[in-house]
Amino acid sequence: MKPTFMGASTKQGYEIAAKSREIVRSLIDEKTKDLTSEERSIVERIVHSTADPEYADITRMSSDFVQQSLEAVSQGKDILTDISMVKAGINKYPGNIYCYISDERAVNLAREQEITRAAAAMELAAVEGFEGVVVIGNAPTALWKVMELVEAGSMNVKSVIGVPVGFVGAAESKKALAETLIPHLVTEGPKGGTPVAVAAINSLINISRNER
Amino acid sequence: MKPTFMGASTKQGYEIAAKSREIVRSLIDEKTKDLTSEERSIVERIVHSTADPEYADITRMSSDFVQQSLEAVSQGKDILTDISMVKAGINKYPGNIYCYISDERAVNLAREQEITRAAAAMELAAVEGFEGVVVIGNAPTALWKVMELVEAGSMNVKSVIGVPVGFVGAAESKKALAETLIPHLVTEGPKGGTPVAVAAINSLINISRNER
Repeated sequence: MKPTFMGASTKQGYEIAAKSREIVRSLIDEKTKDLTSEERSIVERIVHSTADPEYADITRMSSDFVQQSLEAVSQGKDILTDISMVKAGINKYPGNIYCYISDERAVNLAREQEITRAAAAMELAAVEGFEGVVVIGNAPTALWKVMELVEAGSMNVKSVIGVPVGFVGAAESKKALAETLIPHLVTEGPKGGTPVAVAAINSLINISRNER
Repeated sequence: MKPTFMGASTKQGYEIAAKSREIVRSLIDEKTKDLTSEERSIVERIVHSTADPEYADITRMSSDFVQQSLEAVSQGKDILTDISMVKAGINKYPGNIYCYISDERAVNLAREQEITRAAAAMELAAVEGFEGVVVIGNAPTALWKVMELVEAGSMNVKSVIGVPVGFVGAAESKKALAETLIPHLVTEGPKGGTPVAVAAINSLINISRNER
């Protein structure tokens, strides 16, 4: 694959990305000074993708998140996303990326168990033998389900990017994840979403390929 | 297709969406009181999708935006997106949704003309006879290209959702769109992005089906 920089693959795209990175750094330099260089790269890319410097204040990673995630990503382990928008944004990964939300088995499971399709999709992934990094950009119910499956020993999770968005249940689900031993990245409060999730995983993929 | 409410299709998803809508309304009620009910629905869905009430302050629609967009959407006209993440988020549209950013012809065009792939993708769409609503959630260069093509009479655009995100060129491109006669929705400043774009077009699709 051609080398890229923050998703850019043409000279024009590269110039825009480089200039943006410089502006982002000037905005969040002080806030990220205690982070490792990898953690800082991830936060920079999130702020670049959202144009919202507040993410430098609310993004939290467990101390083992980067190492565990990089190990999984560089070994080409699976990536599991909650919705197809997140999957569509991960465009430079040689490994498998799964999203079961539109899978008929998940739809049926949701109906039978009276859970959301996003939660049912996580259960299906566990049954299918998923092993790797979970990336949740939308549904708190998916994140709760992942914690439940890991606790029950039913899902082999290397790390979780848990950044569901919304005023109902998102903040609570992220707070709960931050209290587990699962290596994680979360955003505090209601904010988060697909661009945050995609920025975090794409940043890890780039770091594992020695590109920032 | 099954009726949905803000993307939810199960009882659990519906309840979460309904509660979220209520919270969103309480947060932005005052800010949206001068909008039409359709405009208000669109802004509510954007704030629901981002958990960021600031979008009620920075979202701007031309007075003809809702009518022109609804006409196009209810006639099943084309939707054109700049990146595949936006396309992936539009999941209830019976018409065609196009995204040419990974099309080999766009990649070649970008190289030849030294423009971004996102801009080249817009040119390709025009050549392919696109007619409908343009939805740009990421690339300012794509938005500039659409304005250029419309001005030249080379692209048949009914309305533009122009919400590219970023610190380099995004705000300027949206300001320029707001000064054209093209029916448009923009967000002022650097903020915007794929969830905003997807929320706006999905809201219009729902309104055209008499669902909010």
